[in-house]
Amino acid sequence: MIKINHLNSCEEDFYVKLSKLLSFNSTEDKSIEQTVESILSDIKVQGDEALIKYTNQLDRINVKRSSELEIPKSKWLEALNSIPENQKKSLELSAARIRKYHEYQKIDTWQYTEDDGTTLGQKISAIDKVGLYVPGGKAAYPSSVLMNAIPAKVAGVPELIITSPTPDGYMNPLVLAAAAICEVDRILTIGGAQAIAALAYGTETIPQVDKIVGPGNAYVASAKKKVFGTVGIDMIAGPSEILIICDGKTPAEWIAMDLFSQAEHDELAQSILLCPDASFIKQVKIAIDKLLPEMPRQEILKKSLSNRGIMIHVKDLEEACDISNRIAPEHLEISIEDPNKILKLIKHAGAIFLGKFTSESLGDYCAGPNHVLPTSRTARFSSPLGVYDFQKRSSLINVSRTGAIKLGKIAVDLALGEGLQAHAASAQYRINGE
Amino acid sequence: MIKINHLNSCEEDFYVKLSKLLSFNSTEDKSIEQTVESILSDIKVQGDEALIKYTNQLDRINVKRSSELEIPKSKWLEALNSIPENQKKSLELSAARIRKYHEYQKIDTWQYTEDDGTTLGQKISAIDKVGLYVPGGKAAYPSSVLMNAIPAKVAGVPELIITSPTPDGYMNPLVLAAAAICEVDRILTIGGAQAIAALAYGTETIPQVDKIVGPGNAYVASAKKKVFGTVGIDMIAGPSEILIICDGKTPAEWIAMDLFSQAEHDELAQSILLCPDASFIKQVKIAIDKLLPEMPRQEILKKSLSNRGIMIHVKDLEEACDISNRIAPEHLEISIEDPNKILKLIKHAGAIFLGKFTSESLGDYCAGPNHVLPTSRTARFSSPLGVYDFQKRSSLINVSRTGAIKLGKIAVDLALGEGLQAHAASAQYRINGE
Repeated sequence: MIKINHLNSCEEDFYVKLSKLLSFNSTEDKSIEQTVESILSDIKVQGDEALIKYTNQLDRINVKRSSELEIPKSKWLEALNSIPENQKKSLELSAARIRKYHEYQKIDTWQYTEDDGTTLGQKISAIDKVGLYVPGGKAAYPSSVLMNAIPAKVAGVPELIITSPTPDGYMNPLVLAAAAICEVDRILTIGGAQAIAALAYGTETIPQVDKIVGPGNAYVASAKKKVFGTVGIDMIAGPSEILIICDGKTPAEWIAMDLFSQAEHDELAQSILLCPDASFIKQVKIAIDKLLPEMPRQEILKKSLSNRGIMIHVKDLEEACDISNRIAPEHLEISIEDPNKILKLIKHAGAIFLGKFTSESLGDYCAGPNHVLPTSRTARFSSPLGVYDFQKRSSLINVSRTGAIKLGKIAVDLALGEGLQAHAASAQYRINGE
Repeated sequence: MIKINHLNSCEEDFYVKLSKLLSFNSTEDKSIEQTVESILSDIKVQGDEALIKYTNQLDRINVKRSSELEIPKSKWLEALNSIPENQKKSLELSAARIRKYHEYQKIDTWQYTEDDGTTLGQKISAIDKVGLYVPGGKAAYPSSVLMNAIPAKVAGVPELIITSPTPDGYMNPLVLAAAAICEVDRILTIGGAQAIAALAYGTETIPQVDKIVGPGNAYVASAKKKVFGTVGIDMIAGPSEILIICDGKTPAEWIAMDLFSQAEHDELAQSILLCPDASFIKQVKIAIDKLLPEMPRQEILKKSLSNRGIMIHVKDLEEACDISNRIAPEHLEISIEDPNKILKLIKHAGAIFLGKFTSESLGDYCAGPNHVLPTSRTARFSSPLGVYDFQKRSSLINVSRTGAIKLGKIAVDLALGEGLQAHAASAQYRINGE
């Protein structure tokens, strides 16, 4: 029997215990930092030459020219036609649903004109060039290509470049197929910190991009942090989490499997169940023990469930919402009969899965919303990846002759109050006129 | 006569020269980093006690209890009534205009229902608790309080806390007045890295916030970077820049003063003029020499203009737009007769000031749009501070019984393709039903 942490919300030191179980060790590895720094500076200075050197060395391949680091579009289409028909169709259906959902997120340029003819507004434009990092090898995730590429394309990004390493020359055909479906613009077979450096600084053959998104290992994450400012980046994700609030009326095996579907990601992934029904929590534990031996990834499941899993017996569903708000989970399943009843109590969560038929896995792959979500309590202040991450805004200000007199007086007062006389004089010129 | 860098876009090495003039020295000071780290860890561990110790020491005051670190609302209102009537009125008029503009940025919760009853959407909510850092002393900027606090309040942030140091016990009454107008919730007299730490971790008397915004010195910037992840932060601003595209038909003195209004901020501030008319550039230089001796901040102006100022003689206005896009300026003045003619050529800029009557200073204080803007080429991927920085999104997914069958099949295919069997099983349960 697997032992999972069990808490009762009426214990006096409940929040102390909970906060211990939520924390995880995220010490930064100094040796990774140093390796990344020297890779970044080599690529910045030596460009393609260093890029080829690192790529050959780290991915165990033998490339002579930088042009060999690109996969031509014909190969993506070949891959799309080579994968099993059901997977191709599922990728296409999923892409269409993701596209439809994200269309709702698009915002448009707006402006308004005041009585005196002054016009104010906000111009929305897509980011020009975006790099999308896709981890390589056998554990490559085509769904992650869809979730990152589609919002960028919906935003209208004209140049979307995938970089993905090909260790020992292997490229996952599902990733190529997903890229073909998303109509990305280029695919480069580079990875690690060297790929991030090439995208951030540009080389002779790789253009400097404006933003880099996508998941990666510790080297990629460290490189992204270091180039932030030179280019934009998305959030650096922590371990994945699910929190399930259940009234005890969903089949216990469904809940057990939902907890598994988070825990199977990696050993640090966290699965939490909040339920007011003690006997249901027991049933879920029994289901876990029954189902675990059938699972191919049971070694990972055992470690993440026993170290990071938490079952919490709560007073009622309202208290469950309170506790959930403190945790601000990445994924929140409200597996209760009338989920909309308590939805208004939820303040912080990356994605909210409502009702017993909405398993997290449906959202991960094909419901439509993005699966790139804020982890580690950052849902308190950040949002799922979306079209808005690939759009930017410029303020528009066009002050009329009359408006300049009215606004100029205010600006002069405030600028002088702040001791900025040139600001005041510049406004005063417009009051005086030519 | 002041010597300002002069470039001609037809020179062969134009972009090399330009890029040298755009770069600035932003070396990180290791001693600041270390000081900040020890302050952060002291506040995290010792809370109020350490906060009082650092505050007394660094601001040269003598506070005994943490309750003395708060300025009651009555004092803000007192300040509002004590400042000169014209300044009070200008602050209020400016606040009303900023509020009106930012109302347009608000986004709302949306959702749609599919034929099978599946509902998808996005829930928008305000960030719960926000800290706003306001630099202290005589150089405090009330306009900065308006520009940061109003978007937060328009977004609906329920708890907005200003922290501002009071060196030698001095608090700028204009800052208090601006805070009163913006209806912030609390004002704490703490500053530096110790204020950032208190907001990020919370102490016995100061609540942990979810996001920290506002400008600050090198210690504040370093502390904000270090607590990012625990809380959200806004962009760390670089030196301020203005780029003016002029057709030579705006009075030369207006343009000279607009260049001053950027350069007067500090010695690293950058003012750039792009013009196809060589004789107009000469006139602007003459105007600069004539006006400079009258300016109270002439020492700063001389340094920033001679080290960082650039006059560029361009072929035509289209080329000016190209060059501007490479620079992606924080402030872009298009001081030409028909500015809308070339607006569509502009790709990247924080704020765009159109027409000769729209001096940057009008936008800085009272036109309505925000004056917190992306610097150092980050307008390629980021946006002015806005209501959207104080709102966050949660995905909503409510899959119907029928929808679970349709979506479940796609999810099973893709999950098995990625080797995530629990994801597949969890979807399969919903296909099978109870």
